[in-house]
Amino acid sequence: MNLPVSDCLISARWIVPVIPSGVVLHHHSLVIRNGRIGAILPTDRIGDEHRTLPRVELPHHLVTAGLINAHGHAAMTLLRGYADDLELDDWLNNHIWPVEGRVVDKSFVYDGSMLAVAEMIGTGTTCAADTYFFPPATADAFSDAGFRGQIGIPVVQFGNAWAETELQHIEKGLEFHDSMKHHDLITTAFSPHAPYTVSDAGFNSIRQHADALDIPVHLHLHETRNETEHSRPLQRIQSLGLLSSRLQAIHMTQLTTSEIDLLARHDVNIVHCPESNMKLASGICPVLALGESGVNVALGTDGAASNNNLDMLEEARSAALLAKVSTRDATGISAVDALEMATINGARLLGLESEIGSIEPGKSADLIAVDFSGVGFQPVYHPISHLIYVASGAHVSHSWINGQCLYHDRCFTHLDVGALRTRVDAWQEKIKAES
Amino acid sequence: MNLPVSDCLISARWIVPVIPSGVVLHHHSLVIRNGRIGAILPTDRIGDEHRTLPRVELPHHLVTAGLINAHGHAAMTLLRGYADDLELDDWLNNHIWPVEGRVVDKSFVYDGSMLAVAEMIGTGTTCAADTYFFPPATADAFSDAGFRGQIGIPVVQFGNAWAETELQHIEKGLEFHDSMKHHDLITTAFSPHAPYTVSDAGFNSIRQHADALDIPVHLHLHETRNETEHSRPLQRIQSLGLLSSRLQAIHMTQLTTSEIDLLARHDVNIVHCPESNMKLASGICPVLALGESGVNVALGTDGAASNNNLDMLEEARSAALLAKVSTRDATGISAVDALEMATINGARLLGLESEIGSIEPGKSADLIAVDFSGVGFQPVYHPISHLIYVASGAHVSHSWINGQCLYHDRCFTHLDVGALRTRVDAWQEKIKAES
Repeated sequence: MNLPVSDCLISARWIVPVIPSGVVLHHHSLVIRNGRIGAILPTDRIGDEHRTLPRVELPHHLVTAGLINAHGHAAMTLLRGYADDLELDDWLNNHIWPVEGRVVDKSFVYDGSMLAVAEMIGTGTTCAADTYFFPPATADAFSDAGFRGQIGIPVVQFGNAWAETELQHIEKGLEFHDSMKHHDLITTAFSPHAPYTVSDAGFNSIRQHADALDIPVHLHLHETRNETEHSRPLQRIQSLGLLSSRLQAIHMTQLTTSEIDLLARHDVNIVHCPESNMKLASGICPVLALGESGVNVALGTDGAASNNNLDMLEEARSAALLAKVSTRDATGISAVDALEMATINGARLLGLESEIGSIEPGKSADLIAVDFSGVGFQPVYHPISHLIYVASGAHVSHSWINGQCLYHDRCFTHLDVGALRTRVDAWQEKIKAES
Repeated sequence: MNLPVSDCLISARWIVPVIPSGVVLHHHSLVIRNGRIGAILPTDRIGDEHRTLPRVELPHHLVTAGLINAHGHAAMTLLRGYADDLELDDWLNNHIWPVEGRVVDKSFVYDGSMLAVAEMIGTGTTCAADTYFFPPATADAFSDAGFRGQIGIPVVQFGNAWAETELQHIEKGLEFHDSMKHHDLITTAFSPHAPYTVSDAGFNSIRQHADALDIPVHLHLHETRNETEHSRPLQRIQSLGLLSSRLQAIHMTQLTTSEIDLLARHDVNIVHCPESNMKLASGICPVLALGESGVNVALGTDGAASNNNLDMLEEARSAALLAKVSTRDATGISAVDALEMATINGARLLGLESEIGSIEPGKSADLIAVDFSGVGFQPVYHPISHLIYVASGAHVSHSWINGQCLYHDRCFTHLDVGALRTRVDAWQEKIKAES
């Protein structure tokens, strides 16, 4: 999609720039030029040079950096609520994988990803790290929608509709990486599924290619107690030479103190998926201890099939509440911490911290506005507290990516949601028929 | 408020009657006459006798019983987000109680309660159990809004703006109870604050009066580890003769197996407040074990000062997710269980199970509609799963109490929200100035 550049002035009741931490600017405006943040000014001190810009007035709104969903499976949005209230192994082996085997193809991935992108744009997420079969189809959906993301190259031992062998996954992935090299919104990563589905040879090949191409490795790791009962997969990942700042380790609900030290020493990045981990009874990632050890912890929704939405504000609230109750420390993870997990920490994980994750002059204008006008937001003492503990994605009114407004006053400006709905309805019928 | 009776026919894509458990009716209609549910019919089989009724068409909506918030402090909505990320003792002693001491009066309670009622009506709650100072002011707000509730008579040892001594609380409470005897929407209960703030004499007097008047006792109990560290307050409550089906025990995050048996033997009702317990790091109520022992567990948000909203759909999701992760059992508390906690279990706790809590002919028409039309709800395989795991209060489009539509297509039909906002803004300024 070739979206128009739209320079503008965004004047908001509150702006939360994320950096510096915890700051709330009252009655400020953002100058957006050429897709970037030009300046942050008190609204009553906007100079003549900016006065002619089209103005977006947000008198009851909080504007902050676009949220970064650091782990998901966009295409699986077509399986939202398909099978619930089950353990991970039962859920995967007896429900999700069988239906995927019957219906997943390129068009499933494109349509499911577009559905996810629409939901994410409409709930304040402007960038997502994704991993699923047919990554070029996910990339097409993201690109067509003007949505930013890191698309993982899936690698698994078992054959599927996209690739037959580990080697074939890697070969097709390299081709895909090559095709994306110059894309301004899409980056790539290797995404070996998990230690229990990828061989040593597969991991070795991934490590070599990831180092050569300088791209991340996005890996489900220590997701459940079952996975870590008889051995510590993290040890194997270490012995395979994969522990580095390149590694994005997803879930990590089972960690000893010495493993946390190990992760800190190697600058490994963690993605915490609290709602998926709670819903599948997987366990609790020790985000407070990780943070205290200096480990970067970002936040992800996981797929809609195990969440069952892609609402990052809700996820941030769950992250804060779960951390408090599980550590018996109400002060450990604050609203400010949760917001940082959902923004700048995600940017760091993706290696994009100079481009997105906060509102700073020169950064890309990836922004959201949240409407605080409803009775459920009154009164307002601490806007960041409201953003995390009161708001949910349904209160997001605007989303910008690269300065392009993709969601304006709760309406999609570019996506043809009606046509998308028709395709999703057809998928629902097909999936029901295949069940 | 004297609201008009409005007979109508509500035709919905899905109706979830709550009883029978887990049932979803597709393309059905509800006949509402004289504030009650007259019939539940397939929409294509509506008889001539109903065709002339005004029709509410809800083609993309799920209609279910109005949600019942079994524990809250409505007036404290004026302190929403006033002090966050703190332990309960610090939060109460150093923040909430001092500011309450400076600002709470009858008008604070009326305005704060009205703000809470507006939020609850707009997020699908149609009945709430409340406890706070100046209960007549809360009752006035509920009554003026046409909102249903159980208003607690607060009893504490320390003096406050409403009453000076325990005895005075009880005396004023009896007067209040007397004034409410014939109200069709309001019931009363005694609400001793907690074992650590009420004397044996106070509890004895409460027990005698509650038995004589046949009203419940609504009590914060075993909320935190601190409270139960040196003794078991539940033992004291038992020895004071208060364990019975009349007791509504709130929080109960600290329970041994034998205490659960004790509660079950005495038919004590429990209110689980997962988000408040998480946010204040209080602990986790063992709802699965309680349910397996036959104990009735309802759901509450607690006050907006510790939540920070009154969204019962979000609370139901948190209840399900927290139960799963804390018991390591993804199957224990299902979406259906969570919905029942938020509806019929609340009705049982209030002694109103023949009147509200499910959609059955003859029951009061306390209903809500949730709009499933957004992209974030697609596709729909299991509507009850979507209601709990996808929807939040922001997706509620309609609320009826006693057959009166108080919220229609996301607009308040009776409440003057503009005037309420003005009063709330004034309270915000006053509270900030007093801080």
